[in-house]
Amino acid sequence: MSAALATADFEVRWSDLDAFGHANNACFMTYAEEARLRWLQSLPEPWVTEDIGPLLAAVEMNYRRPVGWPETLRISLHVLRAGTSSLSIAHRIGSATDPAAHYADGHCVMVWVDRRSGRPTGLPAFLRAAVEATGTQ
Amino acid sequence: MSAALATADFEVRWSDLDAFGHANNACFMTYAEEARLRWLQSLPEPWVTEDIGPLLAAVEMNYRRPVGWPETLRISLHVLRAGTSSLSIAHRIGSATDPAAHYADGHCVMVWVDRRSGRPTGLPAFLRAAVEATGTQ
Amino acid sequence: MSAALATADFEVRWSDLDAFGHANNACFMTYAEEARLRWLQSLPEPWVTEDIGPLLAAVEMNYRRPVGWPETLRISLHVLRAGTSSLSIAHRIGSATDPAAHYADGHCVMVWVDRRSGRPTGLPAFLRAAVEATGTQ
Amino acid sequence: MSAALATADFEVRWSDLDAFGHANNACFMTYAEEARLRWLQSLPEPWVTEDIGPLLAAVEMNYRRPVGWPETLRISLHVLRAGTSSLSIAHRIGSATDPAAHYADGHCVMVWVDRRSGRPTGLPAFLRAAVEATGTQ
Repeated sequence: MSAALATADFEVRWSDLDAFGHANNACFMTYAEEARLRWLQSLPEPWVTEDIGPLLAAVEMNYRRPVGWPETLRISLHVLRAGTSSLSIAHRIGSATDPAAHYADGHCVMVWVDRRSGRPTGLPAFLRAAVEATGTQ
Repeated sequence: MSAALATADFEVRWSDLDAFGHANNACFMTYAEEARLRWLQSLPEPWVTEDIGPLLAAVEMNYRRPVGWPETLRISLHVLRAGTSSLSIAHRIGSATDPAAHYADGHCVMVWVDRRSGRPTGLPAFLRAAVEATGTQ
Repeated sequence: MSAALATADFEVRWSDLDAFGHANNACFMTYAEEARLRWLQSLPEPWVTEDIGPLLAAVEMNYRRPVGWPETLRISLHVLRAGTSSLSIAHRIGSATDPAAHYADGHCVMVWVDRRSGRPTGLPAFLRAAVEATGTQ
Repeated sequence: MSAALATADFEVRWSDLDAFGHANNACFMTYAEEARLRWLQSLPEPWVTEDIGPLLAAVEMNYRRPVGWPETLRISLHVLRAGTSSLSIAHRIGSATDPAAHYADGHCVMVWVDRRSGRPTGLPAFLRAAVEATGTQ
Protein backbone atom coordinates (compact mmCIF):
# COMPACT_ATOMS: atom_id res chain seq x y z
CA MET A 1 0.00 0.00 0.00
CA SER A 2 1.17 3.49 -0.82
CA ALA A 3 1.59 6.42 1.55
CA ALA A 4 -1.56 7.71 3.18
CA LEU A 5 -3.71 9.85 0.94
CA ALA A 6 -5.21 11.78 3.81
CA THR A 7 -6.06 11.62 7.48
CA ALA A 8 -9.04 13.30 9.10
CA ASP A 9 -9.93 13.61 12.78
CA PHE A 10 -13.43 14.31 13.95
CA GLU A 11 -15.73 13.61 16.79
CA VAL A 12 -18.43 11.06 17.28
CA ARG A 13 -21.77 12.67 18.02
CA TRP A 14 -23.93 11.24 20.78
CA SER A 15 -26.74 10.96 18.24
CA ASP A 16 -24.58 8.52 16.24
CA LEU A 17 -25.26 5.96 18.97
CA ASP A 18 -28.09 3.51 18.48
CA ALA A 19 -30.11 1.52 21.00
CA PHE A 20 -27.08 -0.70 21.68
CA GLY A 21 -25.18 2.38 22.89
CA HIS A 22 -22.60 2.26 20.08
CA ALA A 23 -22.23 4.22 16.86
CA ASN A 24 -24.66 2.71 14.37
CA ASN A 25 -23.15 0.80 11.45
CA ALA A 26 -24.43 3.33 8.90
CA CYS A 27 -22.48 6.11 10.65
CA PHE A 28 -19.22 4.40 9.71
CA MET A 29 -20.08 5.14 6.08
CA THR A 30 -20.57 8.78 7.02
CA TYR A 31 -17.18 8.78 8.79
CA ALA A 32 -15.43 7.42 5.69
CA GLU A 33 -17.35 9.76 3.40
CA GLU A 34 -16.46 12.79 5.52
CA ALA A 35 -12.76 11.88 5.35
CA ARG A 36 -12.93 11.41 1.57
CA LEU A 37 -14.73 14.70 0.98
CA ARG A 38 -12.37 16.66 3.24
CA TRP A 39 -9.52 15.29 1.18
CA LEU A 40 -11.25 16.19 -2.09
CA GLN A 41 -12.05 19.63 -0.67
CA SER A 42 -8.34 20.15 0.09
CA LEU A 43 -7.34 19.75 -3.57
CA PRO A 44 -6.55 22.81 -5.70
CA GLU A 45 -9.63 22.48 -7.93
CA PRO A 46 -13.33 21.85 -7.19
CA TRP A 47 -14.18 18.16 -6.76
CA VAL A 48 -17.67 18.68 -8.08
CA THR A 49 -18.78 21.07 -10.78
CA GLU A 50 -21.96 21.52 -12.80
CA ASP A 51 -20.46 19.10 -15.33
CA ILE A 52 -18.78 16.28 -13.43
CA GLY A 53 -18.61 14.78 -9.98
CA PRO A 54 -17.99 11.54 -8.09
CA LEU A 55 -20.52 8.79 -7.39
CA LEU A 56 -20.01 6.03 -4.88
CA ALA A 57 -20.13 2.71 -6.74
CA ALA A 58 -19.37 0.30 -3.92
CA VAL A 59 -18.34 0.21 -0.30
CA GLU A 60 -17.16 -2.47 2.07
CA MET A 61 -16.77 -2.10 5.83
CA ASN A 62 -15.44 -4.57 8.37
CA TYR A 63 -16.49 -3.71 11.91
CA ARG A 64 -13.79 -4.60 14.42
CA ARG A 65 -14.76 -2.86 17.66
CA PRO A 66 -17.74 -0.82 18.86
CA VAL A 67 -17.36 2.97 18.85
CA GLY A 68 -18.57 4.85 21.93
CA TRP A 69 -19.10 8.49 22.84
CA PRO A 70 -17.27 10.73 23.47
CA GLU A 71 -14.50 9.80 21.08
CA THR A 72 -12.38 11.55 18.47
CA LEU A 73 -11.95 9.33 15.45
CA ARG A 74 -8.99 9.29 13.13
CA ILE A 75 -9.86 8.14 9.62
CA SER A 76 -7.00 7.35 7.27
CA LEU A 77 -7.33 6.84 3.54
CA HIS A 78 -5.05 5.06 1.08
CA VAL A 79 -5.47 4.78 -2.66
CA LEU A 80 -5.70 1.16 -3.75
CA ARG A 81 -6.08 1.79 -7.47
CA ALA A 82 -6.67 4.66 -9.85
CA GLY A 83 -8.48 3.54 -13.02
CA THR A 84 -9.63 5.48 -16.03
CA SER A 85 -12.67 6.91 -14.33
CA SER A 86 -12.61 5.24 -10.92
CA LEU A 87 -10.69 5.45 -7.70
CA SER A 88 -10.51 2.66 -5.12
CA ILE A 89 -9.76 3.99 -1.66
CA ALA A 90 -9.06 1.99 1.47
CA HIS A 91 -10.36 3.46 4.73
CA ARG A 92 -9.35 2.70 8.28
CA ILE A 93 -11.26 4.07 11.23
CA GLY A 94 -9.18 4.46 14.36
CA SER A 95 -8.94 6.80 17.31
CA ALA A 96 -7.13 10.13 17.51
CA THR A 97 -6.33 9.50 21.17
CA ASP A 98 -5.61 5.76 21.25
CA PRO A 99 -3.29 4.56 18.46
CA ALA A 100 -4.16 0.94 19.29
CA ALA A 101 -7.87 1.39 18.66
CA HIS A 102 -8.85 -0.08 15.32
CA TYR A 103 -12.58 0.28 14.90
CA ALA A 104 -13.14 -0.62 11.28
CA ASP A 105 -11.55 -0.95 7.87
CA GLY A 106 -12.59 -1.53 4.29
CA HIS A 107 -12.61 0.26 0.99
CA CYS A 108 -14.80 2.04 -1.48
CA VAL A 109 -14.91 2.65 -5.21
CA MET A 110 -15.72 6.11 -6.49
CA VAL A 111 -16.52 6.77 -10.14
CA TRP A 112 -16.36 10.14 -11.80
CA VAL A 113 -19.39 10.79 -13.96
CA ASP A 114 -20.89 13.32 -16.28
CA ARG A 115 -23.62 14.68 -14.01
CA ARG A 116 -26.12 15.12 -16.82
CA SER A 117 -25.80 11.74 -18.51
CA GLY A 118 -24.65 9.81 -15.47
CA ARG A 119 -21.99 8.12 -17.62
CA PRO A 120 -18.39 7.62 -16.51
CA THR A 121 -15.91 10.30 -17.44
CA GLY A 122 -12.14 10.36 -16.96
CA LEU A 123 -10.68 11.24 -13.58
CA PRO A 124 -9.92 14.98 -13.52
CA ALA A 125 -6.21 15.74 -14.06
CA PHE A 126 -5.77 17.49 -10.69
CA LEU A 127 -7.21 14.44 -8.96
CA ARG A 128 -4.93 12.03 -10.79
CA ALA A 129 -1.97 14.22 -9.95
CA ALA A 130 -2.89 14.22 -6.26
CA VAL A 131 -3.17 10.45 -6.28
CA GLU A 132 0.12 9.97 -8.10
CA ALA A 133 1.84 12.21 -5.58
CA THR A 134 1.17 9.52 -2.96
CA GLY A 135 3.13 7.01 -5.00
CA THR A 136 0.16 5.05 -6.34
CA GLN A 137 0.47 4.13 -10.01
CA MET B 1 -29.49 -18.97 -3.67
CA SER B 2 -32.31 -20.15 -1.47
CA ALA B 3 -35.81 -18.75 -1.22
CA ALA B 4 -36.14 -15.21 0.08
CA LEU B 5 -35.75 -14.89 3.81
CA ALA B 6 -37.87 -11.77 4.01
CA THR B 7 -39.05 -8.77 2.05
CA ALA B 8 -39.74 -5.35 3.52
CA ASP B 9 -41.27 -2.28 1.90
CA PHE B 10 -40.75 1.18 3.27
CA GLU B 11 -40.50 4.72 2.13
CA VAL B 12 -37.56 6.94 1.44
CA ARG B 13 -37.61 10.08 3.57
CA TRP B 14 -36.83 13.41 1.98
CA SER B 15 -34.16 13.90 4.62
CA ASP B 16 -32.36 10.81 3.28
CA LEU B 17 -31.36 12.93 0.28
CA ASP B 18 -27.98 14.61 0.31
CA ALA B 19 -26.72 17.64 -1.56
CA PHE B 20 -26.71 15.64 -4.83
CA GLY B 21 -30.48 15.17 -4.44
CA HIS B 22 -30.26 11.38 -4.01
CA ALA B 23 -30.44 9.15 -0.95
CA ASN B 24 -27.03 9.30 0.72
CA ASN B 25 -24.91 6.15 0.57
CA ALA B 26 -25.07 5.64 4.34
CA CYS B 27 -28.89 5.45 4.16
CA PHE B 28 -28.63 2.26 2.13
CA MET B 29 -27.13 0.62 5.22
CA THR B 30 -30.12 1.82 7.20
CA TYR B 31 -32.47 0.38 4.57
CA ALA B 32 -30.78 -3.04 4.76
CA GLU B 33 -30.65 -2.90 8.56
CA GLU B 34 -34.33 -2.03 8.81
CA ALA B 35 -35.24 -5.01 6.63
CA ARG B 36 -33.05 -7.36 8.70
CA LEU B 37 -34.47 -6.16 12.00
CA ARG B 38 -38.08 -6.37 10.80
CA TRP B 39 -37.37 -9.97 9.85
CA LEU B 40 -35.76 -10.70 13.23
CA GLN B 41 -38.68 -8.97 14.95
CA SER B 42 -41.11 -11.27 13.10
CA LEU B 43 -39.56 -14.42 14.61
CA PRO B 44 -41.26 -16.21 17.51
CA GLU B 45 -38.60 -15.31 20.10
CA PRO B 46 -36.79 -12.05 20.94
CA TRP B 47 -33.78 -11.35 18.68
CA VAL B 48 -31.99 -9.50 21.43
CA THR B 49 -32.05 -10.25 25.14
CA GLU B 50 -30.03 -9.11 28.13
CA ASP B 51 -27.69 -12.02 27.40
CA ILE B 52 -27.18 -12.27 23.66
CA GLY B 53 -27.71 -10.26 20.51
CA PRO B 54 -26.39 -9.71 16.99
CA LEU B 55 -23.49 -7.50 15.96
CA LEU B 56 -22.76 -6.44 12.42
CA ALA B 57 -19.33 -7.76 11.47
CA ALA B 58 -19.15 -6.67 7.84
CA VAL B 59 -21.22 -5.13 5.11
CA GLU B 60 -20.80 -4.66 1.39
CA MET B 61 -23.00 -2.51 -0.83
CA ASN B 62 -22.90 -2.04 -4.58
CA TYR B 63 -24.70 1.09 -5.69
CA ARG B 64 -26.42 0.58 -9.06
CA ARG B 65 -28.81 3.53 -9.44
CA PRO B 66 -29.56 6.69 -7.49
CA VAL B 67 -32.61 6.64 -5.22
CA GLY B 68 -34.91 9.66 -5.32
CA TRP B 69 -37.87 10.89 -3.29
CA PRO B 70 -40.70 10.03 -3.07
CA GLU B 71 -40.14 6.31 -3.51
CA THR B 72 -41.23 3.14 -1.77
CA LEU B 73 -38.34 0.73 -1.55
CA ARG B 74 -38.59 -3.04 -1.54
CA ILE B 75 -35.68 -4.70 0.25
CA SER B 76 -35.30 -8.45 -0.13
CA LEU B 77 -33.02 -10.64 1.96
CA HIS B 78 -31.56 -14.07 1.26
CA VAL B 79 -29.43 -16.20 3.54
CA LEU B 80 -26.07 -16.95 1.98
CA ARG B 81 -24.64 -19.01 4.81
CA ALA B 82 -25.45 -19.91 8.41
CA GLY B 83 -22.32 -20.62 10.45
CA THR B 84 -21.88 -21.59 14.07
CA SER B 85 -22.37 -18.07 15.35
CA SER B 86 -22.71 -16.03 12.17
CA LEU B 87 -25.24 -15.41 9.46
CA SER B 88 -24.40 -14.05 6.01
CA ILE B 89 -27.34 -12.31 4.41
CA ALA B 90 -27.59 -10.95 0.87
CA HIS B 91 -29.62 -7.77 0.46
CA ARG B 92 -31.15 -6.30 -2.66
CA ILE B 93 -32.69 -2.85 -2.69
CA GLY B 94 -35.37 -2.40 -5.31
CA SER B 95 -38.64 -0.54 -5.71
CA ALA B 96 -42.09 -1.58 -4.53
CA THR B 97 -43.65 0.14 -7.52
CA ASP B 98 -41.18 -0.59 -10.32
CA PRO B 99 -40.02 -4.23 -10.47
CA ALA B 100 -37.26 -3.26 -12.91
CA ALA B 101 -35.61 -0.81 -10.52
CA HIS B 102 -32.51 -2.32 -8.97
CA TYR B 103 -30.90 0.28 -6.76
CA ALA B 104 -28.28 -1.69 -4.87
CA ASP B 105 -27.18 -5.11 -3.75
CA GLY B 106 -24.61 -6.67 -1.46
CA HIS B 107 -24.45 -8.66 1.72
CA CYS B 108 -23.66 -8.47 5.38
CA VAL B 109 -22.34 -10.76 8.08
CA MET B 110 -24.03 -10.75 11.47
CA VAL B 111 -22.47 -12.44 14.48
CA TRP B 112 -24.37 -13.45 17.59
CA VAL B 113 -22.47 -12.48 20.72
CA ASP B 114 -22.66 -12.67 24.47
CA ARG B 115 -23.51 -9.04 25.23
CA ARG B 116 -21.41 -8.94 28.39
CA SER B 117 -18.21 -10.48 27.07
CA GLY B 118 -18.64 -9.51 23.44
CA ARG B 119 -17.58 -13.02 22.45
CA PRO B 120 -19.34 -15.10 19.77
CA THR B 121 -22.07 -17.43 20.93
CA GLY B 122 -24.03 -19.98 18.92
CA LEU B 123 -26.93 -18.86 16.76
CA PRO B 124 -30.16 -19.16 18.77
CA ALA B 125 -32.17 -22.29 17.87
CA PHE B 126 -35.27 -20.34 16.75
CA LEU B 127 -33.10 -18.33 14.40
CA ARG B 128 -31.43 -21.39 12.91
CA ALA B 129 -34.85 -22.97 12.44
CA ALA B 130 -36.12 -19.87 10.63
CA VAL B 131 -33.11 -19.91 8.33
CA GLU B 132 -33.39 -23.62 7.60
CA ALA B 133 -37.06 -23.17 6.74
CA THR B 134 -35.92 -21.14 3.71
CA GLY B 135 -33.97 -24.11 2.41
CA THR B 136 -30.49 -22.85 3.35
CA GLN B 137 -28.24 -25.50 4.86
CA MET C 1 -58.26 25.37 14.38
CA SER C 2 -59.33 24.57 10.85
CA ALA C 3 -59.75 21.15 9.26
CA ALA C 4 -56.63 19.05 8.93
CA LEU C 5 -54.37 20.08 6.09
CA ALA C 6 -52.93 16.61 5.67
CA THR C 7 -52.21 13.37 7.47
CA ALA C 8 -49.26 11.11 6.78
CA ASP C 9 -48.48 7.65 8.14
CA PHE C 10 -44.99 6.22 8.14
CA GLU C 11 -42.82 3.92 10.10
CA VAL C 12 -40.19 4.55 12.71
CA ARG C 13 -36.83 3.11 11.70
CA TRP C 14 -34.81 1.21 14.26
CA SER C 15 -31.93 3.54 13.50
CA ASP C 16 -34.07 6.46 14.73
CA LEU C 17 -33.53 5.13 18.25
CA ASP C 18 -30.74 6.59 20.33
CA ALA C 19 -28.85 5.17 23.30
CA PHE C 20 -31.96 5.59 25.48
CA GLY C 21 -33.83 3.19 23.20
CA HIS C 22 -36.30 5.82 21.97
CA ALA C 23 -36.52 7.85 18.78
CA ASN C 24 -34.05 10.70 19.13
CA ASN C 25 -35.48 14.20 19.52
CA ALA C 26 -34.06 15.35 16.17
CA CYS C 27 -36.02 12.59 14.37
CA PHE C 28 -39.28 14.25 15.39
CA MET C 29 -38.28 17.18 13.15
CA THR C 30 -37.76 14.71 10.32
CA TYR C 31 -41.19 13.20 10.97
CA ALA C 32 -42.87 16.62 10.79
CA GLU C 33 -40.82 17.59 7.74
CA GLU C 34 -41.72 14.40 5.91
CA ALA C 35 -45.42 15.02 6.53
CA ARG C 36 -45.13 18.62 5.30
CA LEU C 37 -43.26 17.67 2.15
CA ARG C 38 -45.65 14.82 1.30
CA TRP C 39 -48.46 17.34 1.53
CA LEU C 40 -46.59 19.84 -0.65
CA GLN C 41 -45.76 17.04 -3.10
CA SER C 42 -49.49 16.20 -3.36
CA LEU C 43 -50.37 19.68 -4.63
CA PRO C 44 -51.02 20.26 -8.36
CA GLU C 45 -47.87 22.34 -8.94
CA PRO C 46 -44.21 21.87 -7.91
CA TRP C 47 -43.48 23.11 -4.39
CA VAL C 48 -39.92 23.97 -5.31
CA THR C 49 -38.67 25.34 -8.61
CA GLU C 50 -35.42 26.88 -9.79
CA ASP C 51 -36.89 30.24 -8.77
CA ILE C 52 -38.70 29.83 -5.46
CA GLY C 53 -38.99 27.39 -2.60
CA PRO C 54 -39.76 27.12 1.11
CA LEU C 55 -37.32 27.65 3.97
CA LEU C 56 -37.97 26.63 7.53
CA ALA C 57 -37.85 29.76 9.69
CA ALA C 58 -38.76 28.29 13.07
CA VAL C 59 -39.91 25.11 14.71
CA GLU C 60 -41.23 24.19 18.12
CA MET C 61 -41.74 20.67 19.41
CA ASN C 62 -43.20 19.49 22.71
CA TYR C 63 -42.24 15.92 23.52
CA ARG C 64 -45.06 14.12 25.34
CA ARG C 65 -44.15 10.42 25.23
CA PRO C 66 -41.19 8.38 24.03
CA VAL C 67 -41.48 6.73 20.60
CA GLY C 68 -40.33 3.11 20.31
CA TRP C 69 -39.74 0.67 17.46
CA PRO C 70 -41.57 -0.83 15.67
CA GLU C 71 -44.28 1.78 15.36
CA THR C 72 -46.26 3.39 12.58
CA LEU C 73 -46.63 7.09 13.22
CA ARG C 74 -49.52 9.25 12.14
CA ILE C 75 -48.56 12.88 11.66
CA SER C 76 -51.35 15.41 11.23
CA LEU C 77 -50.90 18.98 10.07
CA HIS C 78 -53.13 22.02 10.50
CA VAL C 79 -52.61 25.51 9.13
CA LEU C 80 -52.42 28.08 11.90
CA ARG C 81 -51.90 31.13 9.72
CA ALA C 82 -51.16 31.99 6.12
CA GLY C 83 -49.25 35.27 5.81
CA THR C 84 -47.97 37.11 2.77
CA SER C 85 -44.95 34.88 2.35
CA SER C 86 -45.17 32.56 5.34
CA LEU C 87 -47.21 29.61 6.49
CA SER C 88 -47.52 28.53 10.12
CA ILE C 89 -48.37 24.85 10.42
CA ALA C 90 -49.21 22.94 13.59
CA HIS C 91 -47.98 19.34 13.73
CA ARG C 92 -49.15 16.51 15.94
CA ILE C 93 -47.30 13.20 16.07
CA GLY C 94 -49.49 10.27 17.02
CA SER C 95 -49.77 6.61 16.21
CA ALA C 96 -51.51 4.99 13.25
CA THR C 97 -52.44 2.01 15.40
CA ASP C 98 -53.26 3.59 18.77
CA PRO C 99 -55.49 6.67 18.54
CA ALA C 100 -54.74 7.50 22.18
CA ALA C 101 -51.00 7.80 21.64
CA HIS C 102 -49.94 11.42 21.52
CA TYR C 103 -46.19 11.56 21.13
CA ALA C 104 -45.53 15.20 20.37
CA ASP C 105 -46.99 18.43 19.11
CA GLY C 106 -45.85 21.88 18.10
CA HIS C 107 -45.68 24.05 15.05
CA CYS C 108 -43.36 25.44 12.43
CA VAL C 109 -43.13 28.53 10.26
CA MET C 110 -42.20 28.14 6.61
CA VAL C 111 -41.26 31.10 4.44
CA TRP C 112 -41.30 31.11 0.67
CA VAL C 113 -38.17 32.70 -0.74
CA ASP C 114 -36.55 33.62 -4.00
CA ARG C 115 -33.87 30.93 -4.13
CA ARG C 116 -31.26 33.23 -5.68
CA SER C 117 -31.61 36.24 -3.39
CA GLY C 118 -32.89 34.37 -0.34
CA ARG C 119 -35.51 37.10 0.13
CA PRO C 120 -39.16 36.40 0.94
CA THR C 121 -41.54 36.12 -1.96
CA GLY C 122 -45.33 35.75 -1.94
CA LEU C 123 -46.88 32.35 -1.29
CA PRO C 124 -47.56 30.66 -4.65
CA ALA C 125 -51.24 30.90 -5.69
CA PHE C 126 -51.76 27.11 -5.81
CA LEU C 127 -50.46 26.87 -2.25
CA ARG C 128 -52.70 29.62 -0.97
CA ALA C 129 -55.65 27.95 -2.68
CA ALA C 130 -54.84 24.63 -1.01
CA VAL C 131 -54.65 26.30 2.37
CA GLU C 132 -57.90 28.23 1.88
CA ALA C 133 -59.64 25.00 0.91
CA THR C 134 -59.14 23.83 4.50
CA GLY C 135 -61.08 26.81 5.80
CA THR C 136 -58.10 28.84 7.04
CA GLN C 137 -58.30 32.54 6.23
CA MET D 1 -29.04 36.36 30.83
CA SER D 2 -26.32 34.85 32.97
CA ALA D 3 -22.79 33.90 31.93
CA ALA D 4 -22.45 31.19 29.33
CA LEU D 5 -22.95 27.71 30.67
CA ALA D 6 -20.78 26.11 28.03
CA THR D 7 -19.47 26.52 24.51
CA ALA D 8 -18.76 23.67 22.10
CA ASP D 9 -17.11 23.75 18.69
CA PHE D 10 -17.59 21.00 16.17
CA GLU D 11 -17.73 20.47 12.49
CA VAL D 12 -20.62 20.18 10.09
CA ARG D 13 -20.58 16.88 8.22
CA TRP D 14 -21.24 16.87 4.50
CA SER D 15 -23.98 14.33 5.14
CA ASP D 16 -25.80 16.93 7.26
CA LEU D 17 -26.64 18.72 4.01
CA ASP D 18 -29.98 18.02 2.39
CA ALA D 19 -31.12 18.39 -1.19
CA PHE D 20 -31.05 22.20 -0.84
CA GLY D 21 -27.31 21.99 -0.12
CA HIS D 22 -27.63 23.27 3.47
CA ALA D 23 -27.61 21.50 6.82
CA ASN D 24 -31.06 20.02 7.30
CA ASN D 25 -33.25 21.58 9.99
CA ALA D 26 -33.22 18.42 12.11
CA CYS D 27 -29.41 18.58 12.33
CA PHE D 28 -29.66 21.82 14.29
CA MET D 29 -31.31 19.81 17.07
CA THR D 30 -28.36 17.43 16.97
CA TYR D 31 -25.96 20.36 17.19
CA ALA D 32 -27.71 21.74 20.27
CA GLU D 33 -27.98 18.27 21.82
CA GLU D 34 -24.28 17.58 21.27
CA ALA D 35 -23.36 20.85 23.01
CA ARG D 36 -25.67 20.05 25.96
CA LEU D 37 -24.34 16.54 26.38
CA ARG D 38 -20.70 17.64 26.18
CA TRP D 39 -21.44 20.09 28.96
CA LEU D 40 -23.18 17.41 31.05
CA GLN D 41 -20.29 15.03 30.35
CA SER D 42 -17.84 17.66 31.68
CA LEU D 43 -19.51 17.72 35.11
CA PRO D 44 -17.95 15.86 38.06
CA GLU D 45 -20.69 13.21 38.29
CA PRO D 46 -22.46 11.07 35.67
CA TRP D 47 -25.36 12.85 33.96
CA VAL D 48 -27.21 9.60 33.45
CA THR D 49 -27.30 6.60 35.76
CA GLU D 50 -29.40 3.46 35.98
CA ASP D 51 -31.76 5.44 38.19
CA ILE D 52 -32.16 8.92 36.75
CA GLY D 53 -31.47 10.85 33.57
CA PRO D 54 -32.66 13.80 31.49
CA LEU D 55 -35.48 13.81 28.96
CA LEU D 56 -36.06 16.53 26.43
CA ALA D 57 -39.49 18.04 27.08
CA ALA D 58 -39.52 20.81 24.50
CA VAL D 59 -37.32 22.55 21.98
CA GLU D 60 -37.61 25.69 19.92
CA MET D 61 -35.30 26.70 17.10
CA ASN D 62 -35.26 29.86 15.02
CA TYR D 63 -33.34 29.44 11.77
CA ARG D 64 -31.53 32.64 10.81
CA ARG D 65 -29.07 31.66 8.08
CA PRO D 66 -28.32 28.48 6.12
CA VAL D 67 -25.34 26.40 7.28
CA GLY D 68 -22.97 25.10 4.59
CA TRP D 69 -20.07 22.68 4.47
CA PRO D 70 -17.26 22.79 5.43
CA GLU D 71 -17.88 24.84 8.57
CA THR D 72 -16.92 24.65 12.23
CA LEU D 73 -19.87 25.58 14.37
CA ARG D 74 -19.70 27.22 17.78
CA ILE D 75 -22.69 26.41 19.96
CA SER D 76 -23.15 28.41 23.14
CA LEU D 77 -25.54 27.55 25.94
CA HIS D 78 -27.05 29.72 28.67
CA VAL D 79 -29.31 28.66 31.51
CA LEU D 80 -32.63 30.46 31.37
CA ARG D 81 -34.19 28.85 34.44
CA ALA D 82 -33.52 26.02 36.84
CA GLY D 83 -36.74 24.57 38.28
CA THR D 84 -37.31 21.75 40.72
CA SER D 85 -36.78 19.03 38.15
CA SER D 86 -36.29 20.98 34.93
CA LEU D 87 -33.67 23.10 33.26
CA SER D 88 -34.37 25.60 30.50
CA ILE D 89 -31.33 26.21 28.33
CA ALA D 90 -30.94 28.77 25.56
CA HIS D 91 -28.82 27.73 22.60
CA ARG D 92 -27.16 29.84 19.96
CA ILE D 93 -25.55 28.32 16.90
CA GLY D 94 -22.75 30.41 15.45
CA SER D 95 -19.45 29.87 13.70
CA ALA D 96 -16.07 29.20 15.27
CA THR D 97 -14.37 31.10 12.47
CA ASP D 98 -16.76 33.99 11.82
CA PRO D 99 -17.99 35.74 14.97
CA ALA D 100 -20.64 37.55 12.95
CA ALA D 101 -22.32 34.37 11.74
CA HIS D 102 -25.50 33.72 13.66
CA TYR D 103 -27.13 30.62 12.24
CA ALA D 104 -29.85 29.85 14.74
CA ASP D 105 -31.08 30.35 18.28
CA GLY D 106 -33.75 29.05 20.59
CA HIS D 107 -34.06 27.10 23.78
CA CYS D 108 -34.97 23.74 25.19
CA VAL D 109 -36.43 22.34 28.39
CA MET D 110 -34.85 19.26 29.92
CA VAL D 111 -36.55 17.34 32.72
CA TRP D 112 -34.79 14.94 35.05
CA VAL D 113 -36.77 11.75 35.50
CA ASP D 114 -36.70 8.48 37.33
CA ARG D 115 -35.81 6.17 34.43
CA ARG D 116 -38.02 3.33 35.65
CA SER D 117 -41.21 5.26 36.36
CA GLY D 118 -40.62 8.08 33.89
CA ARG D 119 -41.73 10.55 36.59
CA PRO D 120 -39.92 13.82 37.31
CA THR D 121 -37.28 13.75 40.01
CA GLY D 122 -35.29 16.63 41.49
CA LEU D 123 -32.30 18.02 39.63
CA PRO D 124 -29.15 16.28 40.88
CA ALA D 125 -27.19 18.42 43.37
CA PHE D 126 -24.00 18.50 41.24
CA LEU D 127 -26.06 19.76 38.31
CA ARG D 128 -27.73 22.49 40.35
CA ALA D 129 -24.33 23.53 41.68
CA ALA D 130 -22.93 23.78 38.16
CA VAL D 131 -25.86 25.91 37.07
CA GLU D 132 -25.63 28.19 40.11
CA ALA D 133 -21.94 28.70 39.45
CA THR D 134 -22.92 30.56 36.25
CA GLY D 135 -24.93 33.08 38.29
CA THR D 136 -28.39 31.74 37.46
CA GLN D 137 -30.76 31.62 40.44
